[in-house]
Parts: sequence; structure tokens; C-alpha cells
Amino acid sequence: MGTVTTTLSESDFAVPIEDRWFEDYVPGAVYEYGSITMTEEDILRFAGEFDPQSIHTDPQAARQGPFGGLIASGWHTCGVMMRLYADHYVSKVASLASPGIDELRWVRPVRPGDTLSLRTTVREARRSRSRPDRGVVHTGVEVLAQDGEPVLTMTAVNILLRRPGTAQDTTPR
Amino acid sequence: MGTVTTTLSESDFAVPIEDRWFEDYVPGAVYEYGSITMTEEDILRFAGEFDPQSIHTDPQAARQGPFGGLIASGWHTCGVMMRLYADHYVSKVASLASPGIDELRWVRPVRPGDTLSLRTTVREARRSRSRPDRGVVHTGVEVLAQDGEPVLTMTAVNILLRRPGTAQDTTPR
Repeated sequence: MGTVTTTLSESDFAVPIEDRWFEDYVPGAVYEYGSITMTEEDILRFAGEFDPQSIHTDPQAARQGPFGGLIASGWHTCGVMMRLYADHYVSKVASLASPGIDELRWVRPVRPGDTLSLRTTVREARRSRSRPDRGVVHTGVEVLAQDGEPVLTMTAVNILLRRPGTAQDTTPR
Repeated sequence: MGTVTTTLSESDFAVPIEDRWFEDYVPGAVYEYGSITMTEEDILRFAGEFDPQSIHTDPQAARQGPFGGLIASGWHTCGVMMRLYADHYVSKVASLASPGIDELRWVRPVRPGDTLSLRTTVREARRSRSRPDRGVVHTGVEVLAQDGEPVLTMTAVNILLRRPGTAQDTTPR
């Protein structure tokens, strides 16, 4: 996919993604990154492998379908979301795992030619009670189309290491 | 991916996927389908495009990481889930859309060589109040590894057309 993705707003983390730890995810912070354009070829290729329903694989049949044309698999949109999230948002050094996703909603169909960007909002960051070296970050995730309206929304959860040297500090935050 | 996926249990829908409507999704029904094996090559290819974190893209680095080796992107596992869901479970004629997913949980890492299957449980099926030609089906989805233990769980929601000719029957169900 030779995609080059970029920071879209002036507000970005104070620290680069290679030196970003639990403490750097501050509730209320909003960041935007982009962009990836979904071509018809990309849509057909993804769907042929992972989501072979005619609204995603057959432009002719899709024209008669509920969306009046070909649309991307919702899981393809999730993949593009993840690409932007991994390129720009989630730490390259502190990320341990993601237990899951809540309230994933495909709120608008994605069509060939749509250019997608990512908006992340840190919703909650709390230290682990049982493991003082880490914390849990909840992020509100929106994938936006070129008109700025969301096509996908979800809440992501990430487990991140605290900045080395701070793990002994167990005062409440 | 030249994958051939199959019905794993004797219990399957009474009607083929090309003639399956809202009424055919009966709460309590459980079905199993499989299987897709995740090769290291598949894992690296998917992650290179959609989830370039070293635990998914770099076998050497992953060995030092939190899982002690390369694991598949959770979104790749979602893609494999969708392939089995589209091949076997969701109607090819009645499916209108999916508004989203709830409580997606990656409960165990997926490693190269793991062979995945799908278990679906119809949890709820209710007619639309506002649109008498359709209904909403909630499905408990589990992706199982070769040992029968889940690696991914979620609740999927699908909007499906009612069987043609039944749409005037608005008695409560």
C-alpha cells in the first residue's frame, strides 16, 4: 500500500511515538492523522479475501443493492483505522496489548475514492492497581471521510507501560 | 487466499445461505464453520499493510516482546472471522447492513500455524417496529483455535429482510 500518513493538526503529542508512555496519554487530548484513500481496487481485493459479499466484491450487483453501489467492507475500514493508529497514535515502545474494542459502529458507508483520516480522543487513563508498571488507556476513535463526517466510531483500549523510572510512584492519579 | 471453508457440525441452517431470511435465525441455534490457517506469511502481509507494529511484522523483535513471538494483528483475526461468517452464516440474499459490533475481545493471541474456526450463536432476533419488511439479529461470535478455545469473541448485529410474503404478518414474535 505504499501509503505515507501524516499528522493533520498542530496539536500532537509533545513526545515522538518512539518515546511515548502511559503518562503521555492525557484525558481530553484530541489528535488528527491522515490520510488513506480507498480505491475500488483496494476494496475488491480486501473483500475478495475477507468479506466476499456482493456489495463489497461485485460493482454491478452492488448497484442494485441496499447502498446503490460498491462499498468497502467494514473490516477494511477498521484496517485503515489501525494503520493510522499504529503509524501515529499508539506508542512504539510502551504498548503491551489491546484487550478489545467497544461500541464499534459503521455509521456511514465508505465508497471508492473516499479519503479517510483518524481522530483520537483520550477518554480515560488509569494506572493498573495490580501491576504498577502499567496503565490502561481508553480512546475514542473516529474515522472521518473527506467531508469531516465520521464513517466509523469505536472505543479502543490499550495497555501501556509507564515511563521508566516512574513505576515506583504509586500516588493516585 | 484460495481457502475452502466448510460446515463443521451436523447442525446447520435448514435452508441454504442463498435462501436464508430473518425468520431462519432462531435464538439459541449454534453453528460451527471452519477453517482457515494463519501462516506467518499471511500475518506479515496483513500487518505490513494495516497494523505495522513489531509484534505483528518482525519475528525477531516479537520474540523479545510481551507475547514471546510473532502474533497476528487482532484485525486480521477479525478478517478471518468475517470470511467464515460471509461464507456460511450471513444470508446472501437478505442481509441489508451491519450497524456494528459490541464487546469485541481478543482473548488469546493468534500465532503462525493456528487454525481458526467460527462458532455462531443466535442470541436475539426481533422484527423492526418501523420497517415491517426486516428484522435485527444479534449473534454471539467466537473464533476458536484448533484446541477449541476462543481467541476472539464479539456480538455482531445484522439487519436482515424477512422472507418474502411474510412481511404483512405483523403479529408479535
